Amino acid sequence: MPVPSPNLNPVFNIVRLSHVELGVSNLVASRAFYVDTLGLQVTFESSEEIFLRAMEERGHHCIVLKKTKNPKVNAITFKVFSETDLDKAEKWFREQLSPTEWVERPYQGRTLRSCDIHGVPIEFYHKMDRLDSIHQKYKLYRGVKPLRIDHVNCFSPDVDASVEFWNGMGFRVTEYTEDNESNKIWAAWMQRKGGVHDVAFTNGLGPRLHHTAFWVPTPLNIIDLCDLMATTGYLKNIERGPGRHGISNAFFLYILDPDGHRVEIYCSDYQTIDPDHEPIKWDLKDPQRQTLWGAPAPKSWFEHGTEFYGITARKSALTASPIIAP
Amino acid sequence: MPVPSPNLNPVFNIVRLSHVELGVSNLVASRAFYVDTLGLQVTFESSEEIFLRAMEERGHHCIVLKKTKNPKVNAITFKVFSETDLDKAEKWFREQLSPTEWVERPYQGRTLRSCDIHGVPIEFYHKMDRLDSIHQKYKLYRGVKPLRIDHVNCFSPDVDASVEFWNGMGFRVTEYTEDNESNKIWAAWMQRKGGVHDVAFTNGLGPRLHHTAFWVPTPLNIIDLCDLMATTGYLKNIERGPGRHGISNAFFLYILDPDGHRVEIYCSDYQTIDPDHEPIKWDLKDPQRQTLWGAPAPKSWFEHGTEFYGITARKSALTASPIIAP
Amino acid sequence: MPVPSPNLNPVFNIVRLSHVELGVSNLVASRAFYVDTLGLQVTFESSEEIFLRAMEERGHHCIVLKKTKNPKVNAITFKVFSETDLDKAEKWFREQLSPTEWVERPYQGRTLRSCDIHGVPIEFYHKMDRLDSIHQKYKLYRGVKPLRIDHVNCFSPDVDASVEFWNGMGFRVTEYTEDNESNKIWAAWMQRKGGVHDVAFTNGLGPRLHHTAFWVPTPLNIIDLCDLMATTGYLKNIERGPGRHGISNAFFLYILDPDGHRVEIYCSDYQTIDPDHEPIKWDLKDPQRQTLWGAPAPKSWFEHGTEFYGITARKSALTASPIIAP
Amino acid sequence: MPVPSPNLNPVFNIVRLSHVELGVSNLVASRAFYVDTLGLQVTFESSEEIFLRAMEERGHHCIVLKKTKNPKVNAITFKVFSETDLDKAEKWFREQLSPTEWVERPYQGRTLRSCDIHGVPIEFYHKMDRLDSIHQKYKLYRGVKPLRIDHVNCFSPDVDASVEFWNGMGFRVTEYTEDNESNKIWAAWMQRKGGVHDVAFTNGLGPRLHHTAFWVPTPLNIIDLCDLMATTGYLKNIERGPGRHGISNAFFLYILDPDGHRVEIYCSDYQTIDPDHEPIKWDLKDPQRQTLWGAPAPKSWFEHGTEFYGITARKSALTASPIIAP
Repeated sequence: MPVPSPNLNPVFNIVRLSHVELGVSNLVASRAFYVDTLGLQVTFESSEEIFLRAMEERGHHCIVLKKTKNPKVNAITFKVFSETDLDKAEKWFREQLSPTEWVERPYQGRTLRSCDIHGVPIEFYHKMDRLDSIHQKYKLYRGVKPLRIDHVNCFSPDVDASVEFWNGMGFRVTEYTEDNESNKIWAAWMQRKGGVHDVAFTNGLGPRLHHTAFWVPTPLNIIDLCDLMATTGYLKNIERGPGRHGISNAFFLYILDPDGHRVEIYCSDYQTIDPDHEPIKWDLKDPQRQTLWGAPAPKSWFEHGTEFYGITARKSALTASPIIAP
Repeated sequence: MPVPSPNLNPVFNIVRLSHVELGVSNLVASRAFYVDTLGLQVTFESSEEIFLRAMEERGHHCIVLKKTKNPKVNAITFKVFSETDLDKAEKWFREQLSPTEWVERPYQGRTLRSCDIHGVPIEFYHKMDRLDSIHQKYKLYRGVKPLRIDHVNCFSPDVDASVEFWNGMGFRVTEYTEDNESNKIWAAWMQRKGGVHDVAFTNGLGPRLHHTAFWVPTPLNIIDLCDLMATTGYLKNIERGPGRHGISNAFFLYILDPDGHRVEIYCSDYQTIDPDHEPIKWDLKDPQRQTLWGAPAPKSWFEHGTEFYGITARKSALTASPIIAP
Repeated sequence: MPVPSPNLNPVFNIVRLSHVELGVSNLVASRAFYVDTLGLQVTFESSEEIFLRAMEERGHHCIVLKKTKNPKVNAITFKVFSETDLDKAEKWFREQLSPTEWVERPYQGRTLRSCDIHGVPIEFYHKMDRLDSIHQKYKLYRGVKPLRIDHVNCFSPDVDASVEFWNGMGFRVTEYTEDNESNKIWAAWMQRKGGVHDVAFTNGLGPRLHHTAFWVPTPLNIIDLCDLMATTGYLKNIERGPGRHGISNAFFLYILDPDGHRVEIYCSDYQTIDPDHEPIKWDLKDPQRQTLWGAPAPKSWFEHGTEFYGITARKSALTASPIIAP
Repeated sequence: MPVPSPNLNPVFNIVRLSHVELGVSNLVASRAFYVDTLGLQVTFESSEEIFLRAMEERGHHCIVLKKTKNPKVNAITFKVFSETDLDKAEKWFREQLSPTEWVERPYQGRTLRSCDIHGVPIEFYHKMDRLDSIHQKYKLYRGVKPLRIDHVNCFSPDVDASVEFWNGMGFRVTEYTEDNESNKIWAAWMQRKGGVHDVAFTNGLGPRLHHTAFWVPTPLNIIDLCDLMATTGYLKNIERGPGRHGISNAFFLYILDPDGHRVEIYCSDYQTIDPDHEPIKWDLKDPQRQTLWGAPAPKSWFEHGTEFYGITARKSALTASPIIAP
C-alpha cells in the first residue's frame, strides 16, 4: 500500500506525544534506573507510583511508573491543542468504532481514553498541571541529561492499517520502509510536533510497545550514559548502540529498564514542520536504514517488546524475516 | 504593557520563518563567508545573486544574497500552511492598514508582500521549489555545519507595538524582558514553529534587522567556526561569544558578514509547542538574561544593525540605556 | 634575551608537576568549590585540611587545601623520577645558592624544599601513596570531570631570569612571548611531561601564583561548568572565557576559588615530547596569542594573583603595559 | 609469566612511536582514504609513495605509503632521544642476536634497522626533517581531524616473550590481559611517551601488524568519521565501533584501509608517566576489557592482520579461543 497523503486538516488537533504509563514490578529498582541513572526528575512519588519529567518540560509528567505484579503498558498519551479537541476526538473515535471513555488521571484535566485499530490504548488530555521551569537549574542535571520525551515506537501486526488509522488522526509520515516484494509498509515514522516522529510502527507481533524515547542534548551525553551504565551494574541493560540511524538520522542508544521496557536515548533528528515535507522511502533490504554505519541490530531488538494491558498481540501477516533482512 | 495573551487561533497560519533576502556589495566576498566559511549550500548562483540552503532544508533557499551598491535587507519571508492562508493574510494586513502587493519571487509560488506596524517588510508564500534531501550527504558538511535557518531578530522603536502586531499574526511570546521602571517590554521572543523564536524584537533605533540565526548541531561546531574564522582572516568578524544566553538558554556566537549583516550561530534552545506554554519574564537589570555566564555584550551589539530598504529607522522612546543596563 | 637552548640532560630528572598546597580561609566553602562544583575527589579530610585528586590520578593528592587566616600558596611540588634525583636536586639547588631543607609531608616520602631565583617555593618528592584507580568509576564523575592537574602559571618580575633558572632544572620552553622593543621574554611556557607546560611564567608583580590548571576531557565539560557555576552562586567566580588560547592552542576557562586563588580549566593542547621540538615565538603585540578568537582578557587577569608565604612580590622592570598590549 | 618489573633505565632512550611504512596496491585509493577521508596531510608525494603527517606533528611523516603489488608492512619506526642512542641501540640489538643494519630513509638522519624476538621489523632514527606547525591552520582540518600517530598493535605468537623483549628496550606495561588457566599474558599495552601505549601485543598468528592508531580530539570527531565513511563508499571499511575500551579507557573506532591495513581512531586514554605507575590486570574472561559497554568485537578483529615483509607468521601456542573468550 502506498503511504497515504498527509491529512493536513484532521478532525482534532494533537499537539504532541505527552507521556507513557508503565507498569513496573519494583519501584525502587525503577527509580534507580529512571532517576539516578537516566536523570529524570521526580514530580510526585508514593509507595505505589512515581511521576517523572525531563529537564525542559513544564508539564507534570512524561513518564508514569505504577507498581504492579504484571508490568505492561497502560497507555500512550497525547496532548491536544484545545478543550474542544477532546470532544472532537471522542466523536472521531466513535466513528472509527473504537471504544471511548472519559478517565480520571491525576494532574490532568478531562482525559479521553480510546484505542487504535489494533487496540493500542491511547489517551488524550488538554490540560496538565504546569510546573516551574528547571531547564536552567543545571545542578539538577544528571545521567544522560534527558530534555524531553520524544516519541514511542510500537510493533504492529499490520503497519499499513496502523498508518492509515493514525494518518486519520493527523499524524504525517516522515520516513518509511517498504517491503518491495509485498508492496507493504514494513515500518513508518509519523509526526505531529515537527520532528521525525511522535509515534512509529514496526512490523511484528503486535500491538506491543517497542520503546519510549527521550531527547538529549548531544551524542556525548549518550556516551556518558554508556560509561555510567557499564560501570554501575547496568551492562546487560545496554541492548543496541550507540550509533546513527539511517532513518531519522538520529544518534541513538537502546537500553532496557529493570522490567524490560525498552528506552531509546535519542538526539539530532531534523525539522519536518513543512506541510509539503516529503516522506523518505527506504528499502527493507537496505541495512543502512537501521544503522547508517552498518552494524546490525541484535535479534532481541526485533522480537522483544512490552504488551499493553488487556490486548493480545497477534503475528504479522508479513513473512519477510526482520532479522535476515533488517 | 503586559505581554498579550497568546493568539491561538490566528486568521492565517504561518508555519515558520523561511528566509531573508540581503543586499551585499561583493558576491565573491559574501560567497566566501556564507559558503566556504559557514558551510551553506549554493542552490543557484549568477553574477547578480546567490541562493543558499542549510543542510537539512529541502526548500530551495533560506538566504538570498543580491548584489547591490547599497547593502540593506529586502524582506523577511515566512512560509504559510496552505494556499488560502495567503489570501487570508492579504485581507488581514489590509485591515491593519498595511500596504499589500503580490510579488514575483523565483523558485516560489504566489508571494504576498506587506509590512508590520513599523515598516518591517514581510513576505509570505506557500510553495517553494523542493530539493532532494542532503542531510545525510556528510561529505558536503563544512564550516559550522548549519542545519537550518532558525530566526531573525529586529530592532524596534516600540517593542510593545511590535509584540501586539505580531501577536495578531499568531506569533506567541516565549520569553521577554521588561523594563520595570516604565512597565514597557524591552525585548520579546516570539515563535510559530515550536522553538524559542521565529522572530524577536529588541528596543532600539528601528526598524532594523539585528541578526539572522542558523541552527547547528552542537556547541563544538561553534567552537570549530571560531577557530576557522580566527585563522582565515575573519577575526574582526567575530563580534560576541561564544556563550550561553540566559534568555532562550541557547549556546550562541555572533558574527558579521562582509557587509556587516549580523549572523547568529545558535543551538540548544527548547521546545515551546504547548499552547499553554508560559512566557518567561526577565528583568532588564539582570545581566544573566543576556549571557548566563556573565560576560557583557559589546557596545556594537546594542547599536549596530542593518536597515531595511525604503524604511527610515526611528529612535526608541524608551530612555534606559541598553549598554548601562544590558 | 633569546630563549635558552633546551637542557636535555639536566642534573636531576623531574617527571611532572604533582600538586599545589593552597591556604584557604574556609574549608567548607573551598570544599563546595573544589569537590561539589569542580568535581575533584577527596582522599583525606579533617577540620584543618583537605587532600584532593583528579579522576585519572593514582597519586594521593594534586591539591592540598590548608585552613588558615592568611590564604596564600605554600608550595608547588614536583615528582622526580627516582630517589637519587632528590639528592642530586639538593646539590643542584645549593649550587644555585637556593636554600634547601628536607620537610615532612603526609602521604609522601622524603621531600626536598627549595625555591627558584625569585623565591617561588618548590618541593620535590619521589614517592607518594598510590591509590586504586577510579578513572572507570563513572558514577564518581561530577562537575567539570577533572582528569589531572596539568600546570601552574606564576607571575615573575623577570621572566628571562625565571626561564634561565627553570631551564637549568630541565624544563623546556614550548612557546613564549617576546617584547620586541626590549628583546625581553614577556612570558614563557615550559614543560617536563610532554605537554605545552608544567609551569609558565608571565611578566608582572611577582613571584606570585597566577593559576593552577586542571585537564578535562572536552570543551563541552567546560561549557557544563559555566552553566553550573552561573546557576549555583558562582557567577562572579567566572573570570575569563571560555575561549581558545593562541599560545598552547588550549581551550580554557579561568575561575576564582572562594579565596581568589585562580584555577584554569584546560583541554586540547598538544604533545611536545620530541627533544628537538621547536618553541613557538609570539609577538607581545599579537592579541591572538592570548585569545585566538580575539576577545581580550579582563584587567584582573593581568593583575590579580596569589602570594607565596614569606615572599614579597616585586614589580617587574618591564614597562610595557600588559593591559594595553595584552 | 608475571609482567616484568619496569625497566626504568634502559640502555637506550626511545622517545615515542614515530611512523609506520605500509605497502599499498593503489596510491590513488590510499590517498582518498588517508588524505580525503581521514584528513592526514601530504608532506611529499610521487607516483611511487606518499608521506603523511597529522595536524599537530612537526616531524615530516607519521605514515609512509609505498606502491607495491604485495601490500605488507615494511617497518615500525621509533624516534630516539639523542644521536648516541642509535649506537647504543645497535649494540643492544646485537647482544639480543637480532640482525642490525643502517638504512637510508628519506627526510631522516641515520636510521638503524633491526627486529624483535619474533621478527617484527623495527627502525630507529634521531633526526627527521621538521616542518612548520599547522595545528592552528584550522582550514586544513578535515575528516576525523587526526592530531598525531599514537600507537601500533601487533599480533604475537608468544606475548610473554614479546613483553620481555620490549621491556628490555624500556617499554613499560600499563595494562595487560592474563589467561588465568595458563598463567600466560594474553595481551599487553606498553608505553614510552606517557600514554597507555606506543605498542601493544595481542596473542595470535604473528608477528603481524594488527593496527596503527591515530589520536583525535573528541569522540564527536569519530562519530563524524562514521557518518562520512558510511556515505562515501567506505561502509564496508568500518569494522568495529565506535565504543569505549575497558583496557586503556579509550574511545575507539576500527576501520580498514583499501588494502585491509587496519587503522584505529582513538581518543581519551590517560597519562602514565609516573615511573611507579602500576599496570592494570584484566582477566581474559572479562568481556568489558575489550568493550566497556559490552558489545563483542567481530571475528575478523581477532583474525585479520597485515604481514611484515619477509616474515612468516606462526601460530600461537596458547589454545584459548580469542573469539569464544574475547
